[in-house]
Amino acid sequence: MKKILVGQSGGPTAVINSSLYGVIKEAESRDCEVYGMVNGIEGFLEDKYVNLTEKGGEVDFELLKNTPASYLGSCRYKLPENLNEIVYRLLFEKFVKLGIDIVLYIGGNDSMDTVDKLSRYAHEIESDIKFIGVPKTIDNDLVITDHCPGYGSAAKFVAGTVRDIVWDAGVYDRPVVTIVEIMGRHAGWLTAASVLARTEHEFNPFLIYLPEIDFDLSIFLRDVKDALTKSKSVVVCISEGIKDSAGKLICEYEDESTMDQFGHKMLAGAGKVLEHFIKSSIGCKCRSIELNLPQRCFAQMASTTDIEEAEMAGRTGVKHAINGQSGSMVALVRAKEPPYQISFEMVPVTDVCNLEKKFPTDWIKRGNDIGDRFVDYVMPLIQGEHQVEFEDGLPKLLRPIYR
Amino acid sequence: MKKILVGQSGGPTAVINSSLYGVIKEAESRDCEVYGMVNGIEGFLEDKYVNLTEKGGEVDFELLKNTPASYLGSCRYKLPENLNEIVYRLLFEKFVKLGIDIVLYIGGNDSMDTVDKLSRYAHEIESDIKFIGVPKTIDNDLVITDHCPGYGSAAKFVAGTVRDIVWDAGVYDRPVVTIVEIMGRHAGWLTAASVLARTEHEFNPFLIYLPEIDFDLSIFLRDVKDALTKSKSVVVCISEGIKDSAGKLICEYEDESTMDQFGHKMLAGAGKVLEHFIKSSIGCKCRSIELNLPQRCFAQMASTTDIEEAEMAGRTGVKHAINGQSGSMVALVRAKEPPYQISFEMVPVTDVCNLEKKFPTDWIKRGNDIGDRFVDYVMPLIQGEHQVEFEDGLPKLLRPIYR
Repeated sequence: MKKILVGQSGGPTAVINSSLYGVIKEAESRDCEVYGMVNGIEGFLEDKYVNLTEKGGEVDFELLKNTPASYLGSCRYKLPENLNEIVYRLLFEKFVKLGIDIVLYIGGNDSMDTVDKLSRYAHEIESDIKFIGVPKTIDNDLVITDHCPGYGSAAKFVAGTVRDIVWDAGVYDRPVVTIVEIMGRHAGWLTAASVLARTEHEFNPFLIYLPEIDFDLSIFLRDVKDALTKSKSVVVCISEGIKDSAGKLICEYEDESTMDQFGHKMLAGAGKVLEHFIKSSIGCKCRSIELNLPQRCFAQMASTTDIEEAEMAGRTGVKHAINGQSGSMVALVRAKEPPYQISFEMVPVTDVCNLEKKFPTDWIKRGNDIGDRFVDYVMPLIQGEHQVEFEDGLPKLLRPIYR
Repeated sequence: MKKILVGQSGGPTAVINSSLYGVIKEAESRDCEVYGMVNGIEGFLEDKYVNLTEKGGEVDFELLKNTPASYLGSCRYKLPENLNEIVYRLLFEKFVKLGIDIVLYIGGNDSMDTVDKLSRYAHEIESDIKFIGVPKTIDNDLVITDHCPGYGSAAKFVAGTVRDIVWDAGVYDRPVVTIVEIMGRHAGWLTAASVLARTEHEFNPFLIYLPEIDFDLSIFLRDVKDALTKSKSVVVCISEGIKDSAGKLICEYEDESTMDQFGHKMLAGAGKVLEHFIKSSIGCKCRSIELNLPQRCFAQMASTTDIEEAEMAGRTGVKHAINGQSGSMVALVRAKEPPYQISFEMVPVTDVCNLEKKFPTDWIKRGNDIGDRFVDYVMPLIQGEHQVEFEDGLPKLLRPIYR
C-alpha cells in the first residue's frame, strides 16, 4: 500500500478542491493511503498534516466539488535555489518518517518550481519518492498545457458577471463609461474571457485591454470617445496589470502627492486610475468595478467541464506516480480537430516552472479587442453547470481542514 | 378593456423584471392591454414606449425572471414639487392620447414620490387615471412594507459571496484583514446580511459596521486588533455609507492633498480608506473588496422567494388598480407568527415616499455586530434557488426592450 502526500499551494481556484477530490478518489481505488499537507509545504515543515483516508470516513468529499478556497489551506513558500540548504534535508526526513512514497502538489507556477526542486533533490540523494505537479491557476499562464484547471470556471464567472454589468450599466439613457478590472498581472487570458459577454444585440464590452499590449492613455481616450459615438453605455474591460510602453503599470499612474492621511500611497488599481482619467478628460459619468476575489472563489458558477478536468488531472497524477513517474506535471492536451476533447499527459515539470504563457498577440484585434480564435479556444472550457446542493439558502460547503 | 402603462425607475434589482412579469401576466389574465415606458417617466415624456401585449407574441416573458437590469430601461427623474409645472400637463396629455387607465411604476423611494405627485395631480384635475407604486430596492429602505422585492436576492448574493471571500481569505496561515464594502448609503440592511456568511466553525465576518452607528477609527482599530487575537484571518463588512459622529463619510477621510495627476480628488470608497488605515496602523496584510454592481444585477443567484414576491407585488398592483385604487403602493405584510407568510396590501404612497426605513439599532450588537432578530427576519427572504436556463455556458436572458 503506497502512501501519498498531497498539498495545495498558491491562490485558490473554484476547482482546486476538485483536483484534491480526484487525488483522494484515485488513491482510494488503488488502495493507497492519502495524507494532506495543511498549508502546503510550509505547514508540512511545521508537521501540519492530516490523514485524508481516515477523514473520508467522517465527511462527504463529494462536497469538495463545490467548496471554494483550498480545503487543505495554502501557502506562498519558495524553496531555496541551493539544494544544499537544510530545508531539503528536513523535508525528506519528514517524508521518510511518515513513510511517503508519492508527493502531489496542486498549484501554479511557483508550486511547479517546488515540485521541480524536490524531484531534483530526490534524484541527487537517490530517494525513491516521486514528485508530481497538478496544475491549477485562474491566470491560465502555465506553458505546454492547453489550459489550466481553474481557468474555465473563472472565465465563466467573468463572462457572466461582465454581461450582467453590461446590461445593468445600460439602463439609463445617458452617456456612461464603465471600467471593469479583471485579475491577471502579466497574462490577459482571464480579461479576454469578457468578450463572451457580447450578444448579437449588445456589442459591449466595446474595449478590452490586456497586459500583452502596451497601454497608451491617448489611444485609450480616442477609443472610448469613438465607442461613445456608437453606444451611450460603453463598457471597458482591463487586466489589472496593463502597463505603458515604458513598462510602468497604469495602477501606478497616480501623482506622487497622492498620499492618504496616514502617510501611505493610495494605490487603488488601474480601473480607478482610468475612471478618474475619463471623468476629467471626457466629463461623462464613469464608474470602475474591480471583480476581485470572487473571480477565483465563486464556486457556485464553476463550469462542469472545469470540475471534471480538475478531477481528472488529480487522478492522472496519482496514476502516473504509482507507475513510477517523477518530476512531471499533468498537462491537458486538446485534440487537434473539433469536437473538443482533452487527453491528460505527463510533461517534465522543469519545462513548465518559472515560465509564463502569455496571451497570443495575434488573437488580439487592433490592440483593444479579442478575435474569434480565442472564442473558439475558450468556449468549451466554460460549458456545463454544476448542480450545487443548498442549505438554508446558501450552497452547502465542506468545512476546511485547517479550521 | 383597460390600458395599463408600466415603467421601471431607479437602480435595477435582480427581480425588478419579475415584478414587470407579474404586471404583464395579471393584465393578460384580465384582458388588459399593457404598454411599457422605455426609460421610465423621462423616456415616456419623449414618447418612448412599447406595446408589451404585442411584444408578448414575439418573446418569452418567462425569461424576465432571470434577466438582470431593467427590461424597459430606467431613469432617475424627479418630478417638480409644484404641480403647476408644465410637465404634469404634458404627461397627462400623453396618457390621455394613449388611452391609459392605469399607470404602474416599479421603483424605490424617488419612484414612489413620482406616483404620489401624479396621483395628486390626477385628483386635482379630476382625472380618472389610477397610479400605483410597486416597490423595489436592494436597500430595503422603504417604510411600512416588511421588506422590498429585490432585497432578498441581494442579501442572498451578499451572504454567499462574503462566505466565499471568508473561506478564500483564510487559506494562508498568516494575519490578514479583509474589508468588504457593501452597498447602502444610508441604511445598513444589505450589509447586515453578511452575518449569514457565518457557520458553526467560522465566526467571520468578525466585524460588521452599518451607517446607523457612528463610526470611530480608534474603536475600529481596537475591534480589529481584538479580532486578530481570535483569528488569523479577520473579515470586516462595512456599508459604503458609514460615517463618523460629525456626519463625515469615511470615504471622504482622505487627505485633501490626494489629487490624482488629472487634478481630481481620488475618492476610492470607505473600504479603501480603511485598508490603508489598517496597513499603516497594524501593518499586516490587508485587502479591500467592493462588491459593487453584482449585488443588484447577479440574477443567477436570485432567491425564488424574492422572485415570487416581486411577481405577486406586480400582480397585486394591477388587481387593485382595476378595482379603482390610486395613490397607493403595494406593501408586503408578514404574518405575526412563524411560519413565514406574506400578504400583499395597499398603503397610501404618500406615507411611503421621501421616508427612509433605517436598520433598527436594537438589532445591532456592540456597534459592530448583528443580532439574531435580524437573522430571523432575513432568513426566509433568501430561500429558494431559481433554475436558470443556460445557453453556451451562460444564463439565457431576455434582450432588453431599449436595445
